[in-house]
Parts: sequence; structure tokens; C-alpha cells
Amino acid sequence: MLQPTENGARYDLASPTAMPNAGGFLWNRRMMIQVTCRGYATAQFMQPEPAKYSHAPNLEAKTFMQPEQAYYAHHPGRFFYVKDEETGEIFSAPHEPVRAAPDRFSFSVGRDDLAWTVEKLGIRIDLRLGVPVDDVAELWTLTVTNVSGRPRKVSVYPYFTIGYMSWMNQAAEYRADLGGIVASSVTPYQKLQDYFKNKDFKDRTYFLCETAPDAWEANQGQFEGEGGLHAPDALRNERLAGGDARYETPAAVVQYRLALDAGATVTRRFLFGPARDDAEIASMQRRYLGAEQFAAAARDYAAYADQGAGCVEVETPDAEFDNFVNHWLARQVFYHGDVNRLSTDPQTRNYLQDNMGMAFIKPAVARAAFLHALSQQGTNGAMPDGILLFEGAELKYINQVPHTDHCVWLPVCLQAYLDETGDYAILDEPVTGHDGMALTAYERISMAMDWLLHKRDHRGLSYIEQGDWCDPMNMVGYKGRGVSGWLTVAAAYALNLWADVCAARGDDWRTDHFRAGALDMNTAANLHLWDGAWYARGITDDDVIFGVSDDKEGRIYLNPQSWAFLSGAPDEKQRATMLAEIDGQLDTPYGVQMFAPPYSAMREDVGRVTQKHPGSAENGAVYNHASVFYIYSLYTIAQPDRAWDALRKMIPGPGEDDYLRRGQLPVFIPNYYRGAWKEYPRTAGRSSQLFNTGTVSWVYRSIVEGLCGLKGDAAGLVVNPQLPSHWPSMRVRRVFRGATFDVSVTRGAVERTTVVCDGQTLPEARIGGIEAGRTCRVEVTVP
Amino acid sequence: MLQPTENGARYDLASPTAMPNAGGFLWNRRMMIQVTCRGYATAQFMQPEPAKYSHAPNLEAKTFMQPEQAYYAHHPGRFFYVKDEETGEIFSAPHEPVRAAPDRFSFSVGRDDLAWTVEKLGIRIDLRLGVPVDDVAELWTLTVTNVSGRPRKVSVYPYFTIGYMSWMNQAAEYRADLGGIVASSVTPYQKLQDYFKNKDFKDRTYFLCETAPDAWEANQGQFEGEGGLHAPDALRNERLAGGDARYETPAAVVQYRLALDAGATVTRRFLFGPARDDAEIASMQRRYLGAEQFAAAARDYAAYADQGAGCVEVETPDAEFDNFVNHWLARQVFYHGDVNRLSTDPQTRNYLQDNMGMAFIKPAVARAAFLHALSQQGTNGAMPDGILLFEGAELKYINQVPHTDHCVWLPVCLQAYLDETGDYAILDEPVTGHDGMALTAYERISMAMDWLLHKRDHRGLSYIEQGDWCDPMNMVGYKGRGVSGWLTVAAAYALNLWADVCAARGDDWRTDHFRAGALDMNTAANLHLWDGAWYARGITDDDVIFGVSDDKEGRIYLNPQSWAFLSGAPDEKQRATMLAEIDGQLDTPYGVQMFAPPYSAMREDVGRVTQKHPGSAENGAVYNHASVFYIYSLYTIAQPDRAWDALRKMIPGPGEDDYLRRGQLPVFIPNYYRGAWKEYPRTAGRSSQLFNTGTVSWVYRSIVEGLCGLKGDAAGLVVNPQLPSHWPSMRVRRVFRGATFDVSVTRGAVERTTVVCDGQTLPEARIGGIEAGRTCRVEVTVP
Repeated sequence: MLQPTENGARYDLASPTAMPNAGGFLWNRRMMIQVTCRGYATAQFMQPEPAKYSHAPNLEAKTFMQPEQAYYAHHPGRFFYVKDEETGEIFSAPHEPVRAAPDRFSFSVGRDDLAWTVEKLGIRIDLRLGVPVDDVAELWTLTVTNVSGRPRKVSVYPYFTIGYMSWMNQAAEYRADLGGIVASSVTPYQKLQDYFKNKDFKDRTYFLCETAPDAWEANQGQFEGEGGLHAPDALRNERLAGGDARYETPAAVVQYRLALDAGATVTRRFLFGPARDDAEIASMQRRYLGAEQFAAAARDYAAYADQGAGCVEVETPDAEFDNFVNHWLARQVFYHGDVNRLSTDPQTRNYLQDNMGMAFIKPAVARAAFLHALSQQGTNGAMPDGILLFEGAELKYINQVPHTDHCVWLPVCLQAYLDETGDYAILDEPVTGHDGMALTAYERISMAMDWLLHKRDHRGLSYIEQGDWCDPMNMVGYKGRGVSGWLTVAAAYALNLWADVCAARGDDWRTDHFRAGALDMNTAANLHLWDGAWYARGITDDDVIFGVSDDKEGRIYLNPQSWAFLSGAPDEKQRATMLAEIDGQLDTPYGVQMFAPPYSAMREDVGRVTQKHPGSAENGAVYNHASVFYIYSLYTIAQPDRAWDALRKMIPGPGEDDYLRRGQLPVFIPNYYRGAWKEYPRTAGRSSQLFNTGTVSWVYRSIVEGLCGLKGDAAGLVVNPQLPSHWPSMRVRRVFRGATFDVSVTRGAVERTTVVCDGQTLPEARIGGIEAGRTCRVEVTVP
Repeated sequence: MLQPTENGARYDLASPTAMPNAGGFLWNRRMMIQVTCRGYATAQFMQPEPAKYSHAPNLEAKTFMQPEQAYYAHHPGRFFYVKDEETGEIFSAPHEPVRAAPDRFSFSVGRDDLAWTVEKLGIRIDLRLGVPVDDVAELWTLTVTNVSGRPRKVSVYPYFTIGYMSWMNQAAEYRADLGGIVASSVTPYQKLQDYFKNKDFKDRTYFLCETAPDAWEANQGQFEGEGGLHAPDALRNERLAGGDARYETPAAVVQYRLALDAGATVTRRFLFGPARDDAEIASMQRRYLGAEQFAAAARDYAAYADQGAGCVEVETPDAEFDNFVNHWLARQVFYHGDVNRLSTDPQTRNYLQDNMGMAFIKPAVARAAFLHALSQQGTNGAMPDGILLFEGAELKYINQVPHTDHCVWLPVCLQAYLDETGDYAILDEPVTGHDGMALTAYERISMAMDWLLHKRDHRGLSYIEQGDWCDPMNMVGYKGRGVSGWLTVAAAYALNLWADVCAARGDDWRTDHFRAGALDMNTAANLHLWDGAWYARGITDDDVIFGVSDDKEGRIYLNPQSWAFLSGAPDEKQRATMLAEIDGQLDTPYGVQMFAPPYSAMREDVGRVTQKHPGSAENGAVYNHASVFYIYSLYTIAQPDRAWDALRKMIPGPGEDDYLRRGQLPVFIPNYYRGAWKEYPRTAGRSSQLFNTGTVSWVYRSIVEGLCGLKGDAAGLVVNPQLPSHWPSMRVRRVFRGATFDVSVTRGAVERTTVVCDGQTLPEARIGGIEAGRTCRVEVTVP
């Protein structure tokens, strides 16, 4: 059913029904489109807030993307009806809305395109979707082939959803001058000032045809009639009626009446997207609509995607894992760093982590982002809840809720950049804040660390206020007294990392100051939060400790344990009991749950997480962003088998059953898999289908620094691969500061890791004297 | 096709396809439900903001109701699938989602219920929907009859949409303890403070069965499968699978497996609605679910609806008109006055006008509402943009945009109350404002009139700011200089009315003061706004006069003309040219347009109205709220034929073509019909399908005071019927201050209207000495 092709850089799914929601993503700097194998599509673009140009037929809420979004008959999509003109039979490609069982079906997710082949009634439909690099447009190629061995007369009808655009104004008609259907609307508003914001919106949707169609229809209702989308009335007539939409729901449907000899093929190209006015539509048409233009756009896009190639290629005993790492993972990391999740105000922690991933791909982008984030620091050292990326952007949604963890991410994420680039000069960059004050990045991060030290209670534990990271709990500390177990050890970890940076600069006072602060927090955690076998998640405003063995629900949380490993709070004995409890209480066949057991009802002193549905995001889910910190922390305490097990579970498959359960192709890591494996086994393991997640940067870092063990330091490359014990060997191609290292790792009878570089045995497992442009062969033997 | 029955208090539509969106409304004090003949439903209830309990499958925006809302396959609805167990054939009642051509179909809109009869495959399905008076619940009765003349085995599956409830939490399952399907959710929120607001929400949706079903399904996806809603997979099996929904889209489907002898009938009852918790569900079940409870609820509801009987019954040469006035119009007026459009912050002008209508039905409600509105007056005399009805309510949507007309409506609406009741004591009621200051209603309205006089420019014209009434134009005067032609004459009208009230109290200073103000405004209108044949709509911030003969679009507006008739600004010669221009430029077969020609593109100095679609609300529409003021004003200048023509066009029909074009049954007046008759004839005349409109109070007042000419004054009933010239006679039963007048109007060879009351010829056309409880026979002869 599932076939990786082109050396695994492409996945082919041979059935539209077995995994109906399996889909792929394409994006550029301005837009993202997610298309399922059946033809449903979700696309967003920026102006500068995220906007849509293909809508559901009812009024849609403007909101963030929803997990496990449900599809339904009229969900926006891109469909191609085919009618046998001699028999009247119809089908549609990819599969919706007719849902006729195909004779042959192939859905193909490539790095740069999505493609389908659908055969039915002796007609083959090939579809290909690409996008340009810097414009909002879909480039569709339709190829119709007569495979029936006899002459045929067919009509082919591309039907693209435009849908309910606006209650204020909507209309659509065929425009012979532009060669397609153009729908217009005015974004509804009521406040005068919104007019001036909205007037430049791309409120038109165009569907342009390279070849003039034989007939068309721009009116959704007239197209469907009584037949409905699965058997539209308009298809019963010889020709589409050429209707327009006047304050009616617009649609884009065109008809090609084709007489095809046996074996004959015709190709049609289409451009679909939003525009501000006719002039822009005409300009898009000239720029993109044609065989040569399509080919040029494809070349440009491939070159763009090549920029996201990453810094490691692996060859391990697990070919599917290799394929994911070598072709898909860096692509997803690049997406996050290059387009910032199509947000105008990414959460500060997300922005820093996404750019941490970029440190492995385009370090200059990461550098600029860290400095940009610091320029929005408050005068008291606090980082804001979101980083504004556009003039006029505003903090929205969750970014209006005060969280206390954002400062933690500065040293945690910057460390990866420093290790990868050795660019310590960034610390001396002057950064001008909102208030006009210019401080160096070093001074600003030191201020942020002092803010963390300051925001603690009498016990030395970190206040949580209305939430910290990953486990949204808005009721624990909103009265101003509750504290976070996770944040306490996370701050200790951040302070330790920063103390190392201070030490490397010879700043002894700050080194001691932050080291002492970290020790103080670790000590407080052990005194107030250690529950006998793991650390508690926190203590509420009313002094109730939770995430502890006495709790029936929310008994153990993953994050406080993972980050305690990183902060150094537990001793070896504590670590052993923590690992055993995580194995017993949180591990599942689909990954490590964020906490367990899930809450079955509201717990008023914990809050929002208990209102998430068990098995959905957060409440008992395998929340990959939490899981990956567990993985990362496991490498820091030399637990390669546990780390590998959790890491492998993050990638769908191998095995058809696993794909089916996840409902997702292995081309990305989603933000969560359903958890609650004990409580709701039917749904456990399902993918959220959400592409945006801070997980991927950390997966990349865990693989580079942990599994491959090829992490930089100030002047070289530290070598410490941590293979799972059942692997005899692996190979890694690592690009580092311009040099390339062909690394082969094998197990041997050694006491500690030994490294031979270009035939020379090194005195320690660390390669110095990196020369850009040079390629080195490295043989590593691990115990 | 269309059959009024039960003496016209019920309409039966015999085809689901000819008028697919034809629907009916039911409401109580807490909810409203609109159901179409095909089964689509839109329901809202209050908590206290409007909320839904049946959702579309995707995330819905919370917004006001949309005009000409489009339906689509997965739109929320109430459907009943039927399967012949012997052949596997299916159909669904009312019509969606299967859309099988019925052998017999009847959709029946009653005053207190909606009902369907659908026959197919030898099975008759009778459906009835009622609602209780004071709870949010739908009471459904399903009757299945075997009309095939032979024994049958069928399954019947009620399928009620629950849909996408929340991204935070959603689930559903069959609850044997409650006897039905219960879906639960948590309204999504991010800000802590919203939790405390939301925690009492009715976030559950229940579907309860009086008779335990044989099988059930609570999972939308599992129910549909690959078949889709028009042929759900679940119907192919002997029994529904009994599935649950866990963060999946919930649905309520149950199955009854019936063995029916020839002629046999079974009845099933269902309760559908929202609830906060299981206890409330159980309590609703006890209160409503059963044959006796259904009957009691129907009786209570009929008694409730009886309260909205109104104060006139007419018998004219137009039976369809009579039926509308006698059965439907007062019902719609009562709805507006009793539930305030299910809003927590009705626009001030709407609140006053809706309660003006209530003056004819339940005057005590109107009285309290006028005083409540005055209690929210500003200290400077201005009225706010909306009247807050609930603790914690906020001004929303358009009520956040400053408009300058609200004060106008105080004397305009109060006058109807005073005329109907003679209750001048209301003027001396003390009204305490926000600031704690107690002033009488008389003083407060006088302050409001002074505010109108104050808010004028150097020419004596009224500022428009970001808009006034009915023609939303947000760009005319937002810089603070633009003026409104309509508001200038409307204010003059209000001042004149108020001067009359002042005069009746012997308050000479105020009488002269306000009369002089009105004269000044009328003079200014004639000096600055008279365009040669009609009045301009206004003058922009940049001194551009618009709504004038030089304009290609928006050349003539209706409102400034109608209200000038009311204000007395034009002389007889002016009036004649104005009427001729309205006839020539604005009148259409579907009513009088609000302005013409419609704008085809944005005009930056006029604004929002130009962004409404030509033919939709406002831009060139037959906006009934504007049309009815034209009608009302025509009666004040003795133009009965024009008034009748415009009035009659407001009610769909007679004639099947007219119904088809409007797409609406004659059971309510919508807020608009599509206009742009010259530009877009295909769509002109279509109903917006919106039930909420200030139109209806004024239609009622126009009929009572104008057509019937039976208007009260301080101590009696003035008689001045204005029959259209082709009517020889009419009869009216008028209830007035507790007395009943059986009035017969005939044409005769008289010079002026003569009145014979109980056999006695009156000296003037005015009945004095009204005695509550008495019935008088009145014979009126008109010239």
C-alpha cells in the first residue's frame, strides 16, 4: 500500500480509503498548503495575518489551525470530475467528491510537489501540484490519458472550492480577458479603522486556465443543483451553463470537452490563488501560467528546498529512520526556521527553538533571530510572550496569557548555535531594546537569568502565574503564589548553561552567581518537590502539591523529570527510580505520554490541561515536544536504548498497522499523538496532523548531538555517538563549520570512544582544527 | 404547490425542491430555531450571549446571523433516515441528506409548530417540531406509518447533527441511564478570566429518546464512512455499531427496527437541546419527554403565542394580505418585543422600535423598555449605540461604531405608545441614569432633543460621524465635518413631534424652542440639500454633496425623501417632484429600493455601503426598513395608492412566481429583498431570510394608523382610513384601550370621512369616550 520511491524522497500511497487523511505539505515564504490524498486542502497565506483564499461554504472562524481537523463533503478542496460523454458515467480525481472506487490510484508526496494518478472508466488522470517560492499561488498540472484502447469522448471539469467569502460582498464570473474565473469579495469589517487595514487585502480569488475552457460555471449552487457535490446536476448537461455568482457562493468550475484517440494524452495547466486586483491577476498569469513558467517555478522551488538540506546524513540499520532523517526531518526544521509557522507573533519559546533548529541549516538566520528576540526584552529582563515579526503585529491568542518560562529558552537555544558555529562574537552584539537602551546580547541574557532568579517564592521555587511551557495549567498559580516544578529545574538548567558561557568569558562573578542560583534551585526542588520516586509538577496557590503519587490523575508528569536530568538535580539513585517510573507509568507503544493518568474531569486548582480531552493535545497525549526533551535528556545521562525507543516511536511506521493507526505518512513529525493508551486504546496513537511544532528542532539536535554524537564546542567537534545497543554500526555524513566528516561508527572492544581521523588516532574523542571545505574520513569505535 | 390551511394560520408547501430554502421559525424567550422544508436548521439560545448546540462539522465563527445563508451537505440539521430492511433501499425525511424524490411531501409551517409528511417506499413519515415556552429544547414527534398495504420491516434512524463542538474537548456516547446520546465539550478559551465566565455554559448536547432505541451511533465519521451523508455506510449493516466519539466529531443517531403490519403506525418522541450537566438533562427529560408532557408543552406554547394576537384584524379585497396581517404579522412583532432579537445589547434604535411595536400588543412591556433605555442615556443627553439588557453584557459588532441618530427614535417611537395608550403619565416617571441622577422621562427626552440640536455644523445640518441609520456610510463624516441629509430632516421630525408633546403639557418655552429648532433644520435642508427634484443624502467631510443628480451611482436615496415628508420640509410642489423621482428611479416590481443606482465599486468618501454587494443588503436593495418609512410617510401625506403598492410588495406573493423568486413563505417580512433590479434582474427580489428587522413594527403601525386609519390620541380614536383607490371597502376589528371596534369602511359620495358609531353619526371623524370592555359597531364612509 505504501511505497517510498525516488530513494525514499517520495512516498506513494496506493489507496484513497485506507488512510483517508494521509496528506502532504508544501510551503513557501508566504503560504502553506496541506493536501490530503483524497483532495481536501487547507491553505493559508500572509497579509500579514494568516488568511485564506479557499473557504468552507459557511462562515469560518479566523483562528489557529486545529488538531485532527474533520473533513466533510463541502470542505474546501481541488477536484477534477470526469464524465464519459457516451455513457454519462462520472468519477472524480483525486477521490472526492464522487468517491467512486478507482481502478488504479496513486497519491505521491514529494519534497517539492504532490501528485496523483487515478484511473477509472479507461481514463487516467495525472495531477501535479507545485508552488512558487515567493508568491501565493498553486500551480496545477492536469494530464488526461485515454488508456482504454479505443477512441473516447470525455469531459473533464476542474472544480476548485472558493466558498463563502464574505457576508459583505461576494461575486464571481468567468473573465475571458483573464482566462479564468475570478471571484471578488470585501473582507467584512465594522470599525472604520479596519477599513484602512483591509483595503489592501487580496480579496479576490482567481482560477486561471492556460487553455481556454469550452464552458464554465462560477455559481456553486447552480453547479451542484439537487445532485449535490457527489453527482452535480451541472454534469448532466452537455455544457456547463456559464453562470455567475452575485452575492451567492462562488465556485470555480470549467469544462474541457475532449475527443481522445486510443493512447492520446492532453495536458492543462491552472493557476489558483488570491490577488488584490485584476492587475495582480494578470501579472501572476504572465509570471506563472505556461509550460516553461511551470518548469522554471519547479526548478526555483527545488533550489529553495535544497537550502534546507541540513548537516547530517545517516546510514543506520533502520532504513526507514534513515530516510526520514535524510529527506524529511531537515525539511520540516527548515520550514519552521524560514517561515516562522506563518505567524506574525510566534510564541517567544517557539521562535527561539525554531531558530535553534535553523542553527544547523542556515546559522545566519538563527543569529539574526536571537538578536531580534532580545530586542523585545522588557527593561526588567523578562521576555515577552510572543515576538512581533511585522509592523503592526499584535500578540494574539495564548500570547495574551502571561507565562513565566520564556527567559529559560535563551541560553538553552543559543547553546546549540554557539556549539554549531563557534560564533561567540554574537554575545558582544549590541541590542537596542524598546526603550532605546543598547546592551550587548551577553548583558541581556544575563538580565533574563536574573529575572528567573528573582521570580521565585520564599522556598526558592519558580512562580508559574497563568502557565509555563507545554503543560498548559492556568489555575495553578494565577493568584500569584503557585509554583512550577518544571520551571524550577528548567531555570536551574538554563542558569548552569549560562554560567558555562560566563566562565568561558572569564566573567567569574557572574559564573559564581548563576552557578549558585542553579544550585539553590536544584536544592529547593529536591527539598520541596521530590516525591520519593519522581519530582512533582508543582504546588498550587493553596499549597497543594500535584503530580505526585497520591494523585489518582495527573500522577506523574514527564517534563519535570526530563529537565531535572538536564539540570543535574537528581543523584544517580534518584535517576534510576525516575526512569523506572517513566517506563512503568508513561511509556506506551506510541511514545511517552506527557503525564498520566489523564484527567477525566476538571480539577479546579490545575486548570486548562484538565479540560483538554483525554487523548487529545496535552491531556495524557504523547506530546512530542515533551517527549523529545525526554529523549534529549536521556542522551545527556547516557541512556541510548531508552532514547532510541522514544525517538523511533515519534516517526510513523514501519509497518502498515502503525501507519494506519497514526493516519499519517512519515514525512513529518506532528505535535502530538493521541495518548491515554490505557483509557482509550481505540484512538491512542493517532496523529494530530499538525505540522507546526517545536519538536523537530530538538529531534534534529538529539540526532546530531546524541545519537550521532557529533556536537561542536568552542573550537572543535566532540565525538560521542550513542547507538542503541542492538546496532553494530552506523555511518554519518556530518557537515560542520564548512568541513565535511564521513564518519563510520562501529562497536569494538574499547573502554571509551576512540576516534581515527584521516588515518590518525586522536588523543581524545574530539576533532580540532576544523578546516572549511575539507572532507575528512572519521572512524569511530564505541564500547 | 403552496396551500394555506387552517384558515390561513398554516402554510403547506408540497415540494421540497421548488423552494428549497423555504422555512419557518419557532422561538421562545430563550431560543429561536429556523428550520427549512428540507430539514436544515439553525438554532440559537442565550447564556447570556447567543450560543449554539448544533454545529457545523468545522469550526464556526461566533457572529451575528448572516443574510441568505448558504446550505451545504453537512450543514446542521435534523434528519430521519428510513431503510427498507428487505430491499436495502433508503430515503430520508424531510429530504436531506439522501434527497430521494418523495412520492408525497408536505412541509407545514404553523404558528406553534413545524411539521412534515413524507411518503416514499410505501412508508409515511410524519414529523412535528415544537418548543416549550421557557426552556431550550426541541420537542420532536416522529410517526411512522405503513401505507404500502402489506406487512413491512423497516429501520428508522433519527440523525441529529451535533458537529464540531470544540477543539478543547469533545466526546459523545450513548447513555442508557439517560436514555439517549449525550455529547460533552468545553468551550475553548485561553484567557483565565474566561474560564469563570464559561464554566456555567451548557456545553453538553443531548438527544433523548422516549422509547429506548434498538441501536445507536455517537461518532459522525463512523456513521458516514465512505458512503457520505447521502448514503451512510452504517445503514448497510443490520444494526448501528454503538460507537462513541473521543475527540472526534459527535453525532446523535439511533435506530428503531420496526415490523409494521399494513396500516400500522408507531410514534416516537425525542428531546434535543443543550444542558450544563447530567442533572439538567435528567430534569429536562422528566419535564418534557412523554406524550402528556408534549401535549402540555404544546398547550402552554399556544397560550404564549396567543399573547401576541395584536390589536387589528382586517378583511379587505386581498385575502392573502388579510391572512398575513391577521395571523403572522403581529406574531413577528411580538417576537421582536418579547425576546429582543436574542441579543444582549440591541442597537438603541432597534430596541426602541421593537418596543414601539409592543405598544400595540403588550403596552406594559413597551413602557418598561422605554424607561430602561432612558436609564442608559449619557449625561450630555446622547443615547448609547446599544442598550445593555443583561448584567455583564457588552456593546459588540456595529454597536462599537459611533452613530449619531439614536436620540431621534425616542419621540418617534414613544409617540406610538402615547397614541395607543394615552399613558402620558410615563413622561413624569423618574429615571435614574448611570450617574445616579434622577430625571423624569420628559426631562431626559428633552435633553436628547437638545443634543440633536447641538450636534450640527455651521449650516445647521446634523453631523453623521461614522454613520447614522439604515444606510451604513462610515466614511462620509469620520473626520468630524460631514453631515447627514437624512438625519437633518429626521431630527426635525423628532423635534416637531416632541414640541407637540411639550405643547400638550403647556410647556410653552420648550414648545417654541423645539419647534424653532425643527424649522431651522428644515430650512437648512432646503437651503443646502435640495437638489432640484429631491433631497441629497449628505455632504462629506470634504464638502462633496452626494445622493444628487450629478452622481452616476447612489444618485437618489429613499430615506431623506420619506423623512422629509414626515418633517414637513418640502412644500407641495417639492413633494410632487420627489414622488415622481422615487417612482421613476427607485420603484421596482419587488419594492422600493433604498437608493439607486447601486454602487459598483468603492467610493472612498461614502464608505461601507459601497462595499456591500449590489443587490444585497443596503447597496441598492429593497431594504424593507427603509421602504416602510416611505410607506408610513406616504400615509401622512395622503398617498394611499403608492403606500398600498409598496406595502403589498413587502409580503411574498400572491402568485407562485413571486414565491419562487423570493424563496420565502409569507409568514414573515425579511429585512431585505435583493434590489439592483435593473443591474442584476436574475437575483432581484430574493429574500434575505432574516427574521429580525425593525420593519415589522412600522408595518404594523402603518396598517393600524394609515391603511385602517384608526390611531389614538390623548382621549380618543381618530378615524381616517386610507384605502387604495381600487378597493370599494374593508372591515377592521380594532381593539383599543380595552374596547373593541367593529369597523366597516365603504366608499361613498362624501366630501370627507364620516363616522357612524353604534348608529350615531359623529360630529368629527374621531371616537371619544372609550370604554374598556365595550364593543362598538362603526360605519365609516370615505370619499
